[in-house]
Amino acid sequence: MDFPQWDILIIGCGPAGLSAAVNATIRNKKAIVYGGEFCSPKLHKAPHINNYLGFWDVSGEELRNNYLNHVQQLDIKIEYQKIDNIYPAGKSFNVVSKGNMIMCNAIIIAVGLQNPKYLPGEEELLGKGVGYCATCDGPLYKGKKVAVIGYNTEAEEEVNFLAGLASQVIYLPLYQGLGSIDSRVRILNERPKALLGTDRLQALETEGETLEIDGLFIIRDSIPPAQLLPGLELEKNAIVVNRKMATNISGVFAAGDCIGSPYQLAKAVGEGAVAGLSAVSYLDEMNK
Amino acid sequence: MDFPQWDILIIGCGPAGLSAAVNATIRNKKAIVYGGEFCSPKLHKAPHINNYLGFWDVSGEELRNNYLNHVQQLDIKIEYQKIDNIYPAGKSFNVVSKGNMIMCNAIIIAVGLQNPKYLPGEEELLGKGVGYCATCDGPLYKGKKVAVIGYNTEAEEEVNFLAGLASQVIYLPLYQGLGSIDSRVRILNERPKALLGTDRLQALETEGETLEIDGLFIIRDSIPPAQLLPGLELEKNAIVVNRKMATNISGVFAAGDCIGSPYQLAKAVGEGAVAGLSAVSYLDEMNK
Repeated sequence: MDFPQWDILIIGCGPAGLSAAVNATIRNKKAIVYGGEFCSPKLHKAPHINNYLGFWDVSGEELRNNYLNHVQQLDIKIEYQKIDNIYPAGKSFNVVSKGNMIMCNAIIIAVGLQNPKYLPGEEELLGKGVGYCATCDGPLYKGKKVAVIGYNTEAEEEVNFLAGLASQVIYLPLYQGLGSIDSRVRILNERPKALLGTDRLQALETEGETLEIDGLFIIRDSIPPAQLLPGLELEKNAIVVNRKMATNISGVFAAGDCIGSPYQLAKAVGEGAVAGLSAVSYLDEMNK
Repeated sequence: MDFPQWDILIIGCGPAGLSAAVNATIRNKKAIVYGGEFCSPKLHKAPHINNYLGFWDVSGEELRNNYLNHVQQLDIKIEYQKIDNIYPAGKSFNVVSKGNMIMCNAIIIAVGLQNPKYLPGEEELLGKGVGYCATCDGPLYKGKKVAVIGYNTEAEEEVNFLAGLASQVIYLPLYQGLGSIDSRVRILNERPKALLGTDRLQALETEGETLEIDGLFIIRDSIPPAQLLPGLELEKNAIVVNRKMATNISGVFAAGDCIGSPYQLAKAVGEGAVAGLSAVSYLDEMNK
């Protein structure tokens, strides 16, 4: 089977990711962007922006449209899907998105500011009953009891997938505007409090209940970079990069809010440009 | 005598300097920009720019106008004059421009890529007969023989100033379009080759002549940062900064091409924004 193959795969379609894509594409590399439904919700919601040089008192929505238009003019493809996992494979990478495999030779992580607030017990029980991708790991829970915590509507697809598989599915939506959920799913409007278990997940505690479950999926806006790519060096939740935006993993670059403050548009765009050019140099060096 | 007083003085009116000015002004700091006649000649001359996110296939001239308009909307003052010297004075700085003194509490250096090509003998003889500001040091050469090497029309004012002071002035203009020069000045259309002298400047060698002189002024587009501010840490001609764009001198920040490659608009704008915000934080901390 042939998997789609790209020079550079960019994770995140905010200002840093789009700037990286623009700069890599101009230098004749095949680049693709994977991002959330909304490229940069933070940008989208800003009423007035006046600190990005060249645009005076523009709305976030206008600026985002300019960004997206720029990317479209260069025929850059944006996939509005999450990346679930990255596996280094020799000098290239195998990347999984919604159960599909994509291959690429360089990666730019531009996932924005990562919420460092894990639930109590989450980090300890990761891979021991706790996961971030139901469509990937769901089959492990065939005939078992699972819960899903959803921070956005993207989680609904995962919940409905599990409904046809697990013996019981409990869904805790943490957003407004619930969509269409399989009737077999129990919807629980409570906030999660803690994950219980020592060697393995045993229960999810909410303010009102303690749910005994075999598996739990937590669907956030994006997966923390360290989970996406084990071994990635972080410092206080920010990805560590050098001046060329290279991370500690060869072929992996990062830019924007995920590499640290100040959380500013212009900084993200500048770093994205540098990351894009660095990835291009890396590929040129590799192909020599 | 009261000197003009600013929170932040920005040297350079290219993308990095303007971005710094915009970000500092938005945060309610009194910022002023000093720059060349043309803000960023490099940008001005670019026929097509398509790597600055948000602007697709714009000309350098258009983009520069957008940048300048942005700055004007915020009522930021640009002085089209060179900075000749910076003197640290306690927790603030005294800055000299065309013989005038300006005071400020923080400085952002955004002078762009500095031409590292000194003339042979130039570095060795600096301060020993060789200088970069005739209107500052000219009086030392009253009744003596001086030469001026001019890389731009700004040098002409310096030449005419010296004409009324020195016993002889020889002018080597290295640009097209010579303006109005005092009739007492000898204009020599030759390229300089080397500066001669051991403890002190003795002569300027050109391809055709060896001119015995007491003083030489070299007027370039901007003064190399290390001459502007002695003690500033450089590495391979680039100003060394940390992630916050702070240099080794407290209160002095730098951004853009002068801190190193890649020489890209988006990088300069991003770094300028960071330098601006860092200078703001520095001032807030100082005033606590």
